Amino acid sequence: MKKTNRRQMLRAGAALGGGLLARAEESRTLGKPLSGYGERSPHVKSVRATRQSQTPEAGSSSTPLADMYGIITPSSLHYERHHGGVPNLDPARHSLTIHGLVERPLILTMDEIRRLPSVSRIHFLECGGNSGAEWRGGAPDVQRSYGLASCSEWTGVPLRLLLDEVGVKAGASWIIAEGADACKMQRSVPIVKALDDALLAYGQNGESLRPEQGFPLRLLTPGWEGNVQVKWLQRLHVTDQPYMARDETSKYSDLMPDGKARIFSLAMEAKSVVTFPSGGQTLPGPGLYELTGLAWTGAGRIERVEVTLDGGRTWQKAHLQEPRLRLAFTRFRLAWRWDGKPAVIASRATDESGYVQPTREELIAARGLNSGYHFNGIKEWKVAPDGSVTHVGA
Amino acid sequence: MKKTNRRQMLRAGAALGGGLLARAEESRTLGKPLSGYGERSPHVKSVRATRQSQTPEAGSSSTPLADMYGIITPSSLHYERHHGGVPNLDPARHSLTIHGLVERPLILTMDEIRRLPSVSRIHFLECGGNSGAEWRGGAPDVQRSYGLASCSEWTGVPLRLLLDEVGVKAGASWIIAEGADACKMQRSVPIVKALDDALLAYGQNGESLRPEQGFPLRLLTPGWEGNVQVKWLQRLHVTDQPYMARDETSKYSDLMPDGKARIFSLAMEAKSVVTFPSGGQTLPGPGLYELTGLAWTGAGRIERVEVTLDGGRTWQKAHLQEPRLRLAFTRFRLAWRWDGKPAVIASRATDESGYVQPTREELIAARGLNSGYHFNGIKEWKVAPDGSVTHVGA
Repeated sequence: MKKTNRRQMLRAGAALGGGLLARAEESRTLGKPLSGYGERSPHVKSVRATRQSQTPEAGSSSTPLADMYGIITPSSLHYERHHGGVPNLDPARHSLTIHGLVERPLILTMDEIRRLPSVSRIHFLECGGNSGAEWRGGAPDVQRSYGLASCSEWTGVPLRLLLDEVGVKAGASWIIAEGADACKMQRSVPIVKALDDALLAYGQNGESLRPEQGFPLRLLTPGWEGNVQVKWLQRLHVTDQPYMARDETSKYSDLMPDGKARIFSLAMEAKSVVTFPSGGQTLPGPGLYELTGLAWTGAGRIERVEVTLDGGRTWQKAHLQEPRLRLAFTRFRLAWRWDGKPAVIASRATDESGYVQPTREELIAARGLNSGYHFNGIKEWKVAPDGSVTHVGA
Repeated sequence: MKKTNRRQMLRAGAALGGGLLARAEESRTLGKPLSGYGERSPHVKSVRATRQSQTPEAGSSSTPLADMYGIITPSSLHYERHHGGVPNLDPARHSLTIHGLVERPLILTMDEIRRLPSVSRIHFLECGGNSGAEWRGGAPDVQRSYGLASCSEWTGVPLRLLLDEVGVKAGASWIIAEGADACKMQRSVPIVKALDDALLAYGQNGESLRPEQGFPLRLLTPGWEGNVQVKWLQRLHVTDQPYMARDETSKYSDLMPDGKARIFSLAMEAKSVVTFPSGGQTLPGPGLYELTGLAWTGAGRIERVEVTLDGGRTWQKAHLQEPRLRLAFTRFRLAWRWDGKPAVIASRATDESGYVQPTREELIAARGLNSGYHFNGIKEWKVAPDGSVTHVGA
């Protein structure tokens, strides 16, 4: 940002805080003592927004992305999507079975898994149904529309290592992953992905996986839709065909205008959203602001994010926070001087494959409106003269 | 790791888990429903180890580094060091005053600070007194000896930006940072660091700073000892000399053998520690293991970590997890085949400046034993034939 712009921003700030010449509060008594496992301030109240289906155990909760900083999502606010509730598994009694088209079937305890060679990587995770509301006209704020996406540092064992060891037989082309939750979630994973960058993850943001994320073990297929990254993982069945399980046929598939369905559309396409300013927020007045948001892609790195402040007539490049990691959130920022007039803002991501995030109209022209999955169109927010920010619906 | 080595590791694993042919537990009832702010599994019990001074409000608690994965420390387990307890500050009433040798003194509210241009960076934080016990012979485990070091993604405003705006006067060379806690912690910061990479941080691992880390605002001087990175920051006083405050004279200084003290020894030198296997742990038997640990330096990036398995006679290069970030933890790993005989293991870090972590003996030869601060010597762990791991004391 230019120095003159910064000065204007600070002056705008000083004007806002005009009455603040009295000294702020400070503590004149001893504070709280040390603790074993810390908690956040009682003044911080941001929570996941929950949306249940037929029962409280089947539903989703979304990350308050507009309240987040940087690229790491705190594990306590990582989005949830469960189909049978969160089981309370004892890691001492949990195991992973690998069988099917393999030379040497294997059962591993958690102690054995944690002893194996491991890697740590920062990756986003996104539900295939994230932003589903946008197909139907949109939702009023970032959390409710885009909050089924989060980003963590994951630690685990490369699945390739175990597949090398069990000896995959000729003809094997899929692996069926099964969870130990009440619904025994099953998804079919092409073996090519399993041999590429898939992980058996037991660590999240430095500590053990959270229960909502599959404690003690989950499958991680970086860049792919969340549902296939089976939580509470207890079984990998190597086969020569997919299972055509419920969650890859009746769900998480894309019904096209011609009545045929795209299935196994697993890699998430490039996507971005402005989180400030965004729906439900209010700007205190004209002046300089730092616009910010998140971008991600299942195709590798985010290469470029452009922002429009005039409803798509002109675009300018946003600053991307380094390091830009493969298959991770990328934070973008742009200094913005709001003149107090109506504005329509949006972001457009381009990934390293050259893929450019489409408009909602382009997406609907290609895929129709039968499906509620895999929306990645450009999202517009409208700023009114009174500073209120609302979503631009269909 | 070579394929044959991996196979041996898996066979060792299979032998360990021999009895496990019965299927593990799985959930046959619906699990817990969605939640607003998640908690860890009741089966995960790792906590900070607290050590109080005269009162419960003055003391430290250390991160269980041997239980951690990757490089991010969960905020709930970030180490603590308080001198007057943890104040409960209301961000709506908190402000930062910048005054002294400046053209235009400034008071900023938290809303104003959060509106300014920001950056996010992953940085370690280490107490100047971390590993102090090693001067006197060592402590039995990683947590109690090395746990006053942690690593987070921090978000905040570059301090340089605000100093540019208030207009630092000629002759200004130090900034006195003051906290709003009961002891009004004060430390002197050379202005050259403030103009380099210092941040006014309000975000930690995606959410607001935790209370123990200075909510709602702390100073961050990346790579420097923790104490100078003043928490609950309420005031920056630009001056032409340091304050010689209590915590930079009677504390956090290094008394040399000749009776003179090194003061303002702020940048932390290259350091590493093996976290597995480490003191207090027990190896279940001979076989292949993945040795792992953490390295960090106040001089930039970690360039190399070497590991010895024979008490320093021979060293081999460990694998460093990418990305290796400036002034952040670097995770290292090494496949290790333990033959069941006594072993003495240790790690040695080299940073991008070429600095090599010294032995304890070299460090003591240079600095003597008067001081309890800034220990960064090589740390040895001893593995006994029964698999028990203990620290090698003086």
